[in-house]
Amino acid sequence: MSTPYPFSALVGQDEMKRAILIAAVEPAIGGLLVLGDRGTGKSTAVRGLAALLPKMRAVQGCRYHCDPQAIGGCDDCVHLKQGVRVRTEELPVPVVDLPLGASEDRVLGALDLERALSQGVKVFEPGLLAKAHRGFLYIDEVNLLEDHLVDLLIDVAASGENLIEREGLSLRHPARFVLIGSGNPEEGELRPQLQDRFGLSVEVRTPTDIAERVEVVRRRDAYERDPAAFSAQWAKADAKVRRQILQARDRLGALTVGDDVLQRAAELCVAVGSDGLRGELTLMRAARALAALEGAETVTLTHLRDVAVSALRHRLRRNPLDDTASGDRIERAVAELWA
Amino acid sequence: MSTPYPFSALVGQDEMKRAILIAAVEPAIGGLLVLGDRGTGKSTAVRGLAALLPKMRAVQGCRYHCDPQAIGGCDDCVHLKQGVRVRTEELPVPVVDLPLGASEDRVLGALDLERALSQGVKVFEPGLLAKAHRGFLYIDEVNLLEDHLVDLLIDVAASGENLIEREGLSLRHPARFVLIGSGNPEEGELRPQLQDRFGLSVEVRTPTDIAERVEVVRRRDAYERDPAAFSAQWAKADAKVRRQILQARDRLGALTVGDDVLQRAAELCVAVGSDGLRGELTLMRAARALAALEGAETVTLTHLRDVAVSALRHRLRRNPLDDTASGDRIERAVAELWA
Amino acid sequence: MSTPYPFSALVGQDEMKRAILIAAVEPAIGGLLVLGDRGTGKSTAVRGLAALLPKMRAVQGCRYHCDPQAIGGCDDCVHLKQGVRVRTEELPVPVVDLPLGASEDRVLGALDLERALSQGVKVFEPGLLAKAHRGFLYIDEVNLLEDHLVDLLIDVAASGENLIEREGLSLRHPARFVLIGSGNPEEGELRPQLQDRFGLSVEVRTPTDIAERVEVVRRRDAYERDPAAFSAQWAKADAKVRRQILQARDRLGALTVGDDVLQRAAELCVAVGSDGLRGELTLMRAARALAALEGAETVTLTHLRDVAVSALRHRLRRNPLDDTASGDRIERAVAELWA
Amino acid sequence: MSTPYPFSALVGQDEMKRAILIAAVEPAIGGLLVLGDRGTGKSTAVRGLAALLPKMRAVQGCRYHCDPQAIGGCDDCVHLKQGVRVRTEELPVPVVDLPLGASEDRVLGALDLERALSQGVKVFEPGLLAKAHRGFLYIDEVNLLEDHLVDLLIDVAASGENLIEREGLSLRHPARFVLIGSGNPEEGELRPQLQDRFGLSVEVRTPTDIAERVEVVRRRDAYERDPAAFSAQWAKADAKVRRQILQARDRLGALTVGDDVLQRAAELCVAVGSDGLRGELTLMRAARALAALEGAETVTLTHLRDVAVSALRHRLRRNPLDDTASGDRIERAVAELWA
Amino acid sequence: MSTPYPFSALVGQDEMKRAILIAAVEPAIGGLLVLGDRGTGKSTAVRGLAALLPKMRAVQGCRYHCDPQAIGGCDDCVHLKQGVRVRTEELPVPVVDLPLGASEDRVLGALDLERALSQGVKVFEPGLLAKAHRGFLYIDEVNLLEDHLVDLLIDVAASGENLIEREGLSLRHPARFVLIGSGNPEEGELRPQLQDRFGLSVEVRTPTDIAERVEVVRRRDAYERDPAAFSAQWAKADAKVRRQILQARDRLGALTVGDDVLQRAAELCVAVGSDGLRGELTLMRAARALAALEGAETVTLTHLRDVAVSALRHRLRRNPLDDTASGDRIERAVAELWA
Amino acid sequence: MSTPYPFSALVGQDEMKRAILIAAVEPAIGGLLVLGDRGTGKSTAVRGLAALLPKMRAVQGCRYHCDPQAIGGCDDCVHLKQGVRVRTEELPVPVVDLPLGASEDRVLGALDLERALSQGVKVFEPGLLAKAHRGFLYIDEVNLLEDHLVDLLIDVAASGENLIEREGLSLRHPARFVLIGSGNPEEGELRPQLQDRFGLSVEVRTPTDIAERVEVVRRRDAYERDPAAFSAQWAKADAKVRRQILQARDRLGALTVGDDVLQRAAELCVAVGSDGLRGELTLMRAARALAALEGAETVTLTHLRDVAVSALRHRLRRNPLDDTASGDRIERAVAELWA
Repeated sequence: MSTPYPFSALVGQDEMKRAILIAAVEPAIGGLLVLGDRGTGKSTAVRGLAALLPKMRAVQGCRYHCDPQAIGGCDDCVHLKQGVRVRTEELPVPVVDLPLGASEDRVLGALDLERALSQGVKVFEPGLLAKAHRGFLYIDEVNLLEDHLVDLLIDVAASGENLIEREGLSLRHPARFVLIGSGNPEEGELRPQLQDRFGLSVEVRTPTDIAERVEVVRRRDAYERDPAAFSAQWAKADAKVRRQILQARDRLGALTVGDDVLQRAAELCVAVGSDGLRGELTLMRAARALAALEGAETVTLTHLRDVAVSALRHRLRRNPLDDTASGDRIERAVAELWA
Repeated sequence: MSTPYPFSALVGQDEMKRAILIAAVEPAIGGLLVLGDRGTGKSTAVRGLAALLPKMRAVQGCRYHCDPQAIGGCDDCVHLKQGVRVRTEELPVPVVDLPLGASEDRVLGALDLERALSQGVKVFEPGLLAKAHRGFLYIDEVNLLEDHLVDLLIDVAASGENLIEREGLSLRHPARFVLIGSGNPEEGELRPQLQDRFGLSVEVRTPTDIAERVEVVRRRDAYERDPAAFSAQWAKADAKVRRQILQARDRLGALTVGDDVLQRAAELCVAVGSDGLRGELTLMRAARALAALEGAETVTLTHLRDVAVSALRHRLRRNPLDDTASGDRIERAVAELWA
Repeated sequence: MSTPYPFSALVGQDEMKRAILIAAVEPAIGGLLVLGDRGTGKSTAVRGLAALLPKMRAVQGCRYHCDPQAIGGCDDCVHLKQGVRVRTEELPVPVVDLPLGASEDRVLGALDLERALSQGVKVFEPGLLAKAHRGFLYIDEVNLLEDHLVDLLIDVAASGENLIEREGLSLRHPARFVLIGSGNPEEGELRPQLQDRFGLSVEVRTPTDIAERVEVVRRRDAYERDPAAFSAQWAKADAKVRRQILQARDRLGALTVGDDVLQRAAELCVAVGSDGLRGELTLMRAARALAALEGAETVTLTHLRDVAVSALRHRLRRNPLDDTASGDRIERAVAELWA
Repeated sequence: MSTPYPFSALVGQDEMKRAILIAAVEPAIGGLLVLGDRGTGKSTAVRGLAALLPKMRAVQGCRYHCDPQAIGGCDDCVHLKQGVRVRTEELPVPVVDLPLGASEDRVLGALDLERALSQGVKVFEPGLLAKAHRGFLYIDEVNLLEDHLVDLLIDVAASGENLIEREGLSLRHPARFVLIGSGNPEEGELRPQLQDRFGLSVEVRTPTDIAERVEVVRRRDAYERDPAAFSAQWAKADAKVRRQILQARDRLGALTVGDDVLQRAAELCVAVGSDGLRGELTLMRAARALAALEGAETVTLTHLRDVAVSALRHRLRRNPLDDTASGDRIERAVAELWA
Repeated sequence: MSTPYPFSALVGQDEMKRAILIAAVEPAIGGLLVLGDRGTGKSTAVRGLAALLPKMRAVQGCRYHCDPQAIGGCDDCVHLKQGVRVRTEELPVPVVDLPLGASEDRVLGALDLERALSQGVKVFEPGLLAKAHRGFLYIDEVNLLEDHLVDLLIDVAASGENLIEREGLSLRHPARFVLIGSGNPEEGELRPQLQDRFGLSVEVRTPTDIAERVEVVRRRDAYERDPAAFSAQWAKADAKVRRQILQARDRLGALTVGDDVLQRAAELCVAVGSDGLRGELTLMRAARALAALEGAETVTLTHLRDVAVSALRHRLRRNPLDDTASGDRIERAVAELWA
Repeated sequence: MSTPYPFSALVGQDEMKRAILIAAVEPAIGGLLVLGDRGTGKSTAVRGLAALLPKMRAVQGCRYHCDPQAIGGCDDCVHLKQGVRVRTEELPVPVVDLPLGASEDRVLGALDLERALSQGVKVFEPGLLAKAHRGFLYIDEVNLLEDHLVDLLIDVAASGENLIEREGLSLRHPARFVLIGSGNPEEGELRPQLQDRFGLSVEVRTPTDIAERVEVVRRRDAYERDPAAFSAQWAKADAKVRRQILQARDRLGALTVGDDVLQRAAELCVAVGSDGLRGELTLMRAARALAALEGAETVTLTHLRDVAVSALRHRLRRNPLDDTASGDRIERAVAELWA
């Protein structure tokens, strides 16, 4: 309804912006964890990006606003296809907030009590996961959520579908979205096992440069005093980002990852000691998405290097004898392997 | 219904009174935390200020008593606008107390069970947040509330709207109010992360001057014995405060904050080590509101200095090696930067 | 229904009896805390006092049995006034016990489920707070109640009205009563912050004098064996107390407290170090009520001195270096100031 | 329905048997606490005593089976009296067990859900407290009950009426019964404050005499193999106990307690240091009941001495410097005072 | 439905088998506790024994399948007797499992919600305790059940009737069954007070003899591959056990226990220091049942000795200075007394 | 619906694959525990195996999709058999996921609330256990489930039927499935007693060989980019596995286990000190299933040796003096016995 702050007007925070772009191009990346101080534009960036994306075409009457190209993935579409002709409509890309205090039934969806009580039928009422389908699900203070709910949200984000087994309901519906969780590590960390389930992880910091700080405050004030005028100023820059994303999505299918990159990814994971193979899969997907964003013809070792910290930072065990921050340990390993 | 104690009859407590005035002029300041001893007039000040404000014009029939100038912000108004003509009415500025033991559904609003059971329809029944729209929400002993409820109240105060996702309801309605939380730090502190979310923070103390104490008790006794007569005595002083607020609100839009002030605000925040950029944004807004209250043409470094302690006191980390109270540390930094 | 033990037949316990009389004369005193051994007549005194008070005239049909002189304070009276003529009736002064295990909805009042279910309307069903209006609310073992309930009861006692925000109900009704909480400090203390909210605090002890103990047991036995006969013996003494209270209430409005007394009250509070100004307000009110009870023309320093311990004992911080009981520390300060 | 074990066939355990008889004669004694090993006949004694008491005459149709001599004490009787003529019936003296896992609503009584749902009226459905009226309420393992429930049961036992404030119900009904709580101190003690609320306290022990143990087992086996025959053998002894109780009840009203006995009771309480005056009141009542049981003309110091341990044992503070069991400390004080 | 493993095909575990036989002959023994490793045939033995017992004759239409010889013990039978003629039927002896996660209402029985909702009447729906009447109630992992539920089950097993006081229901029905609880002490022990309430206690161990282990596995495999054929092989042995039990039951009434045995039982209990007299009662009953099983004319000291360990093992206090297992301490005492 | 990853395309993890095959051939093995790092193909393997199994023939209209050869095992079939002729259908072998947050009623089945409310009848609505009948039940992160739920699932898996005693329902239905629980021991271990209830236990590890890691990632990428093409490549290999399983099932009935193998199994269990006889039973069943899979004529000591670690690893007590991993301790014992 209101005018969001333009994505391109964000000052600094390059690692975060790149990670959001990668997630927007390749949702299989499996979610993004943004850690750092409050008031550094985390939520603003997500809202800004969603606003610059083109509207999406959706099946009219489908409660999951499915893609008309992929009709059949949910019960609503199956039902609609039985009729004569499916109508479509254009909708903005959804950004769904998980409000603090949202009840579990509103997140997952639940029995429609109104119809159950008045008509005596069991109908599923979609929840926030359905609402976020094909868009973004943003969780502020993900570390304050209960573990089992985070686990569940990552499960859905990873599988792309929401599996309901409660209140006598038993169904599944599509729920493909980019999960973005933000949090301040000082308020308590996510369990390592939950961190590991996010695809990428970035850190944001309050800038220490006085000029940069003044610029942030100045832009914010300008935006608050006249959002429309401020957005107009940045419309051209935003349009450029939009084109970059759309072209990258097109290009993604044609880009393969060569054995040299896979080999180096494996060596890197072994060097830093990340568990399982999730690190390698993420490195491969993120490097490919970055190559697509940069319009490259092939995925190179440089793409791999550029996503290494974001893809692995949250997968390292704490080493009691080595106090080095995770990011630094990865960069050291990168420096050695790329030497 | 009853006659509140006049705002201008409060003895002393200047920092608190100034902060309340700033919040009344610029609600974007984001709430006010009043810490200190019981029985020092915290609640009295809020009630007194609200009583002296002029009545507000509101859309008749709208459960959120929206401003007729801003119609369209809620479902009720949207619905009313479809009819022929919108009627308006005058209402006192609301001061809503969050009573101890209020249930979460009454705070946020909830499904109207009466209509759900009798008519089988799902209708939203607004709660205290709706009631407080365009006025004040006062929480006594905010430190005794559950963290998640405080968080939620600050979220609503900050965004100006209440987002409902529960009991099968999914809606949002305007809820712009000045949030005022009071508490006694001896009964347990708010988490630093919650403190940081309040815009301003002031401390009140029991006066130690015998004459001042006697004056407080004498005025209180006079008020209790004959509220109407007492109020009449202070009506003129209250009217002056009213004019000051209304003029400041008019003036606020035209006041910009120069780069020298922004630069100094950033330097101050770096000097005292407050996290994020919320400190600077608050300093800018509070200094501007103070300038407006004082009828100044420009926002000066002096305005900035005068709000520095209230705007930053609750954003400092406790320094284990420096026992100095937060307020003193800020004043020391101010002295150095303004030297 | 049954015959209570006569107030004037109580053996000893003068401090407690005086405090109850003060609270009966000046309910704004804000509640009375009675601490001490079980079986020392705490409940008996309250019941005895209420029984000797004259019946009160009340609006017939009003569920809050409002005073016909003050009609309009509740929804019932507003509703009744619309009819032709208000009838009145005489009722005994209520003494309401808060039974252990009473549910919160019965204390505060709640939705009338019977009418909600059968007629589909939301009607408020008054609770114990309504029942206690214009009388006494007695809580045995107040220290065993949950803190939030005690807080809530004191809030209501202090404000004189009960504010309901739950189960979709939103209303307020008058609830002016003398709150009397008793407890045994050995079973766990009230939080200092809750103690401070009571107006007066007295201590009762098992008498150590054998003759006094025998007298208590003898009177108790006589009462149990023939309550009617026993009451008849004490009727005259009780009538004298009744006259004393009624005359004091009449006199109270005309008694002002001079600056010398206010000054000394402030000095005393500073000397013993009580927080806030609640101590002074209580000293002023209690001294005035005592003067009224004694039929004095003016409130003197002696009246102040006589209520000092009861008014301040529960407002002192524990001093780790000074083991002296609170009462003794106050008496020491009194001795110095009155020297 | 079945034949209980005869009271007079119990082997040994004289202190317990005497205390039960006292409680049966003088219910104002306020409950009996029986502490000791399992399998020592605690429950058997209560059931046996109740069985030998004569049937009681009760108002027919009254759910509290009120005494026709005392009609009017409950709502049922008030209602019945409005009709033409009250019929009566004979009922055995009730012994009500509080089964483990009984829900609070069944103990106190509750809203009759059946009638609330089917007829839409709020009717009270009496609970176990009503059932126990005029009889015995037996709680095995009273120490395993929640404190607040024990407190509540003692409250009812002490006041003789059950005060209901829950589920929108607000009523009181008579509930005069002898409360008997048994427990094994090894499984956790009652809080001292709860112990103090019981009138008498006795200890039972497994006999250590081989012959006595064999006798217990032999009688038990005889009873189990042919209850009817065994009861017949003891019918005469039981009849004698019945006469003793009935005569004692008759005599009780005429027996007064002289000042010498009251004086000595007070001295004893001061000597052993029991709190409050409950000890003296119990000593007086128990001594009088014992005198009545023994058919004495006056209450003597000997009667007092004989009930001293049972009346005071559970009222002593633990003395960290004196390891002597409570019973021995009382006996020592008795020896000195009676010397 | 399926064919249980034959009781007589169990390899070893003689103490357990004997205890089950005793409990089947004399249910007054009060339950059996089987402690030891998993996978040692505990459940198998119970199921096998029940299967070999002859069918029992029951009142048709009675929900507690009462014995036609004992009609009148339950409400159903009372109701049926009012009709013309009671029909009977033959039913297998029930073995009821308490499944993990069974709700308390299914164990005790509860209000029949179906009839309450549809017909508006309050009807009791019997639970597992009713189902187990006249048979066996088997609780695997009794140590994992909540204490209060175990207590309740033992209460019912001991009294032979189930007393319901919940959900507005107030009734009792017969529930005489052999309670068998099994558990692995390594997973947490029963409280000593609960152990003491079981009549007998046996320990089972994984055999250490290789040949015996092979035999167990071989028989198990044979049974699993062809249950019918395997059962046929053991039919004759099972029939012998059946005759032994039936004859023992007949004989039991005529067997008395002489004073020499009672005397020795008391000496033994004193020697090992078991609390209360439950040990002696169990010794007497178990010795008598064993004598009946062996077809003896009188109960001898040898019978007593043979049941001593099972009857007392779980009644000994742990002696911190004597590490000897309970069983060994009893055997030592037996050796001395029988010497 | 979608194409699962082919079972034969899994790289490495031989122990896990063998254990899954054994469980598919011999469900009596009692469940499989897969422990190890995330992202190592645990869930993929189960899904892949189920997909290659031939469809199963089932009774049409039976909610438990019973085998037409075994009709009569459930209430649905009993009901259907009363009609004229039973129809059958072909269904894929079910793989049921236990989603995090599934409610207990959906797992076990529950009262069909829809029919209870609308038609007033009590009908059972089958849950996930019914759905899994004749297939696989997969629990990811079994260590995060509550103990009592795991216990219950193993009970059902072991007995092959689900016993319902809740909500007034009392029934049993067939539920024979292969239970597969996976978990990461670093996130908390299963209680030893729960581990012991699983038949086999295997460990999976992230491969350390770079080439193998690259191969895993390469195949995964190929599968994700074109599932259909990838599956086609592996169709032949999968068909071979299918034939192997089907032939093994046929062969299983004819294979007996000789005494030499049983003897050695017992010796092995004694040597490593596993409790109970569950180890031997599992060794026997697993060795036989392996022999069947390998097409052997007889079960040999080699088959026994090959399943030894998987069958016993989770049954060993931790030895505080011997830090050797369980697997190594078993292998050492195997080496000695087979020497």
